[in-house]
This record gives sequence, C-alpha cells and structure tokens, in this order.
Amino acid sequence: MMQPIHIEHTSAPKPRPKASDIGFGKYFTDHMFILDYDDGKGWHDARIQPYQPITLDPAAKVFHYGQAIFEGLKAYRTEAGNLVLFRPEMNIKRLNRSNDRMSIPVIDEELVLEALHQLVLIDQTWIPHEPGTSLYIRPFVIATEDMLGVSPSKQYKFMIIMSPVGAYYDEGVKPISIYVESEFVRAVAGGVGHVKTAGNYAAGLKAQEGATLQGCAQVLWLDGVHRKYVEEVGSMNVFFHLGDKIVTPALTGGLLPGITRDSVIHLLRYWGLKVEERLFSIDELVQVQKDGNLKEMFGTGTAAVISPVGSLVWKGETLTIGDGSIGELAAHLYETITGIQTGRIEDPFGWRVVLK
Amino acid sequence: MMQPIHIEHTSAPKPRPKASDIGFGKYFTDHMFILDYDDGKGWHDARIQPYQPITLDPAAKVFHYGQAIFEGLKAYRTEAGNLVLFRPEMNIKRLNRSNDRMSIPVIDEELVLEALHQLVLIDQTWIPHEPGTSLYIRPFVIATEDMLGVSPSKQYKFMIIMSPVGAYYDEGVKPISIYVESEFVRAVAGGVGHVKTAGNYAAGLKAQEGATLQGCAQVLWLDGVHRKYVEEVGSMNVFFHLGDKIVTPALTGGLLPGITRDSVIHLLRYWGLKVEERLFSIDELVQVQKDGNLKEMFGTGTAAVISPVGSLVWKGETLTIGDGSIGELAAHLYETITGIQTGRIEDPFGWRVVLK
Repeated sequence: MMQPIHIEHTSAPKPRPKASDIGFGKYFTDHMFILDYDDGKGWHDARIQPYQPITLDPAAKVFHYGQAIFEGLKAYRTEAGNLVLFRPEMNIKRLNRSNDRMSIPVIDEELVLEALHQLVLIDQTWIPHEPGTSLYIRPFVIATEDMLGVSPSKQYKFMIIMSPVGAYYDEGVKPISIYVESEFVRAVAGGVGHVKTAGNYAAGLKAQEGATLQGCAQVLWLDGVHRKYVEEVGSMNVFFHLGDKIVTPALTGGLLPGITRDSVIHLLRYWGLKVEERLFSIDELVQVQKDGNLKEMFGTGTAAVISPVGSLVWKGETLTIGDGSIGELAAHLYETITGIQTGRIEDPFGWRVVLK
Repeated sequence: MMQPIHIEHTSAPKPRPKASDIGFGKYFTDHMFILDYDDGKGWHDARIQPYQPITLDPAAKVFHYGQAIFEGLKAYRTEAGNLVLFRPEMNIKRLNRSNDRMSIPVIDEELVLEALHQLVLIDQTWIPHEPGTSLYIRPFVIATEDMLGVSPSKQYKFMIIMSPVGAYYDEGVKPISIYVESEFVRAVAGGVGHVKTAGNYAAGLKAQEGATLQGCAQVLWLDGVHRKYVEEVGSMNVFFHLGDKIVTPALTGGLLPGITRDSVIHLLRYWGLKVEERLFSIDELVQVQKDGNLKEMFGTGTAAVISPVGSLVWKGETLTIGDGSIGELAAHLYETITGIQTGRIEDPFGWRVVLK
C-alpha cells in the first residue's frame, strides 16, 4: 500500500515574480516534496512542506561522489482552465532507470505520481497564465550519507521542487547555430550518458564554453568511440529531415531516451512519415547538406519542445540548414505537441494527465 | 597578495573515536576550512571554523548538474614527532586542473597550501599515533548557485574537511582479487576521467556491485573506445611487473594522473628499473600471465599506497598473479613510500613538506 503524504502548508507565501521576469529555474514555488531513505528502513516520511533550504554534513556523498539523478517535466494550464501533466509516467520510469544505474534504491512509482499530483495542486496558483508559459517540475535524488568511502550511500533524499517558466520562444521559434564538437565527448556506451545523472551535465559545460566562443548557441555531440556518429545537441535529442524521411540517432547507450524524442517519433509515424532510428555520422550529415537534401534539423527536449537548427559550424565552415529558418515539419511538431500539452488540440495518444 | 585566513576556534571539541574504531572517512575533526566564490567578487572570505553542517537551497547546482571536484591527501605523524604532508603541491595543481575542466574558477594555489597548513596544525591532535594511521584531508569544491539553468554556477564553496584514518592494512598488506569489467566503462578520452570530478565515482558504483557478486574486491577498468586497454583498478592506477620491466597505462585521457602513480614511477626509475608508460591490453595481460611472465600486479593510490593484486577474474576464468601473495617490488615500494611519508627513511626527492 502506498505510504501517505503528510502536508504542512506554508504560513508565509512568497511574492510572485512579474511575468516578464520569470525566465527559467530562477524562482521556486511555496512548497516542496521530500522523501527520505535510510538503509534498512527504505523510503519513508513522504511529506510536502514549505520550500526551504536543506542542511547537510560537508561529508555528504553527493558533494564528493556525485551520486545524484534528476528528472524534468512541466505542468500546463490549458485554455479550458485544466491543469495537466504530459506523459509523467515516462519521467517516473526513467527516474527509476537512472536510480538503478547509479546504485540508488528505486522509488514507488505510484507514490511519485501522487506526489507530483498533490504538489502541483497545492502550488497551482504558481502556474503562469501567459501563452507558452508553464510550471517546470524538478524531481531529484541526492546521496546524503556523511561518509567518505566510495560506496553507495546508505541515506538519500528524493525531492521535488517547482519553478514557473516563461515562454521559451518569446519572440517566436528561432533557429539556433550549432558547433560540432570534436575535442570533448559527452558520453560513451557502457557509461552513464543514457540516464539523467548530475555529472553528465557538469561534464558538458566546457564544450559549451567553446561553442559560445564560436558564436554558437549549443554543441553537437559526436559519439566517444568513433568520434563521428551524432548523438545529442546540447542537452536535447536531435532529428534530421532528409528528402522523404526523418532520421534520429538510435539509442546506442550514449544518449538520453528523451520523452519529447519519443513523442516526436510517435507523431511522425502517426502522420505516415518514415522515421529511421539509426547511426548517423557527421560525414553523412555534411554530405546531405552539400547535396541539398537536408531540409531540416532540430533538437527536442522538455524545455524548448522543438528547437530548430539554422546552421552548423564544422571544421571552420558554416553549413546552413534548409534556408536557415524554421522548417515546416519542426513548426508542425511544435504546434502539435504544445497544442496537446495545453489542450488546444486533440490528444490521440492519451498523453495528457489531467490533475483538475 | 594572499588573502588572510580568519580563524574561529571551536568551543566544543568533539570526543575522539577509539583507535580500533577509526576506519576510513567516518569521523571528522573539530574544524574545517571554507572559501566562498561569487561571480564578480572572486574567491573570498577564507576562514577556518568549527566543523558544522552546511545549508543550501534545494536548487543548488551541485545537486542537479554535478559541478563538483575534490582532492585527497594525508597528513602523517613521523617517528620524530613531526607533522608532514606528502607532495601537497601535486594535489593543489590537480585541484585546479579539475576546476578548469569542470568550468569552475581556479583557486590561488598558495592560499590552498596555507589553508592545509593551518588546518592540520589546528587539529593536529586528531592525527592518530598508531603505525599505519594518518589524517585524511579532503579538499573539495561544490557549485552552490540556486538556479536550474545548465550553465556554470555563479557561486561556489571550496572546503577542506579532515578525517583520522586507521591502518589500511591492519593485518599486513593483503593481495586482492579483481574482476575485469567488460560491460561498464569508467571514462573515455575527451570526457572527464582524467580529473577528480564527483560524477566519475558514482558512475563506477554499479560495476563495483557486480565485482562484489563475483567475489572480487575491485574492478579492472578497460578503455571505453577499444574495450581492451587497461586503465585503472577500482579508483587506483595500476602497474604490471613483467620480466625485467614495469608497465603502467599511459595517461591517454581516460585515467587519473595519480600522485602515488607518479611517485612509484620516480622511485622505480631511481632504482634503475625500466618503466614503460604505454597502452597495455587485457589480451597482453592474459598472455604474459599464461606465459608465466607476470610477476606482479598492483594498484596505487593515496588510501592504500600500494595494493597488490592476487588474482584476476576474466571471462569466467581466474588467473593467479605471481604466486598470489605480495610481490617483492610491491612490498619494497610500499615500505619506501610509507617510509618517506612517516620519516622512517630518507627523502631523496623532497617529497615531504614538514608542517612542524
């Protein structure tokens, strides 16, 4: 039987940020969810309490050995006034796959869904009303045992915090420029690139610095073995629209199985289009671009949904994708997925979970 | 000019653990060092204060993106009653190489050395007296900005905590059994395996679980590209004594440049022995073992100093190294390095830094 969630309401609600100032991940709602783990006792003391700092011993394992994982999803306010989540069961399953890979005890999936449900409802007034806005939800687990041996922690905290987010594209969807990274590697099969563990993100910061110096917004990651197969763009999955088909890198172990990626594949096939999940090399990418067959390239992820790529920088050359503006398919995917999320259009797959 | 270190002494010294109960990384001394970083202000407010918990926002970047690095070194009590560090300048340089790779601002190396110096002296009574014991010193940096964007943190804490450690080999140096890992990969060139970032250690836990199930103490890591070149053993560097020479994996980017590794190479060459830093495959390892030419294999690291390997498990077969007991060279290296560390023998290289 699922353990109960104890609720302590805040007595001091915080002031709300101005709509124009929301941004991403800067402001947090009035409450958070916590669940503790102790060896021999399991996950216990599920509770929602006022958002507040946490106090840890300086020897807590998360600080030293990075035993930490997270998820990211959003709650949306529909035009009819409902509050919905988008495929949360996918996030919860991936949360536990991440836990398992990082030697963290798995968590009752029903309890996580219930925690998301209750927490969003408690802080529902924090979900902004403006078009394109939403409430970003960040479940995460950290190892808290205060002992310096390199071994799985005997104590953890699973927490959920939430942050209102502004429209990702406040001046319309804009294609970005991408730097093809040849020095640094994000992940390799056999490693942890296929799960959402904290260290993957710190490892990518250095390459991002280089991309910025090249005037690019993000990095295109190549695989760590052959240094030629495309894996991800920034921290998004990536799709290529070539002639009459769409290609996306296969899940070979070095890249994250994104939920937006999965949704895009579903939609494309639902529309009768041909999708290939396979190895796709930078050489093939350059070739189809030179042949004029690369119609579109776009990233997919929870934050941006669809992020069209306008140009690529590779070996000192700038390659323009299509005509450099957002492609037809990217635009249609963006409209459809955000439409399903916000209730603007029909949901043929049962992806919306209505909270109220 | 180096910034001053403000000192606040504890008014409540903690009880000391019994010598027999010390273990590794379980008890912490009375004081710790802290240095804060804020964007635009740099590293500031160097201070030693009573050991105490730290309070962070749940959105602190270290919890989500693993922007965290550490070092490990020891303070020794010599037979003459001096307190010494072993090659601390090597740890401090590596600390900043780790910082740089993880997009963390580098720290004044002179200040770090001074902080180590003062902190060890303040808590000097925590250094145990029994043979083989020491005070383990853990400098580390964590990203503390409370913002969920994937970008380098604008705030950090650099801290040093210390823990008395018991004799690693309380019943004499014992060879360990090693499981050759073929599924999981620790690191790959272009990634972060050559620096001491937190995420590397969490990523290795799953393989360690498998080794334990196979009755082995540690994992032998193979490279992530060819899946055949030996890289590290557990979280130690590794050496092979073959015929008249010693082989250790070259620093190809996937393994940590250990300070004990460097000291071992120095000593072996000082003794007139031939050391090869090169690629060394599991196939070559198995072949020399089968040919009877593998005299010794041992790991090197700060915790164990020298850790002889007695046997290897590879493809269901158990290969015994030498006669399964500690080899002559491993024993001589262990005696020499611990001898230099504790002042029992001469220090021809100036590796000891005497604090008092």
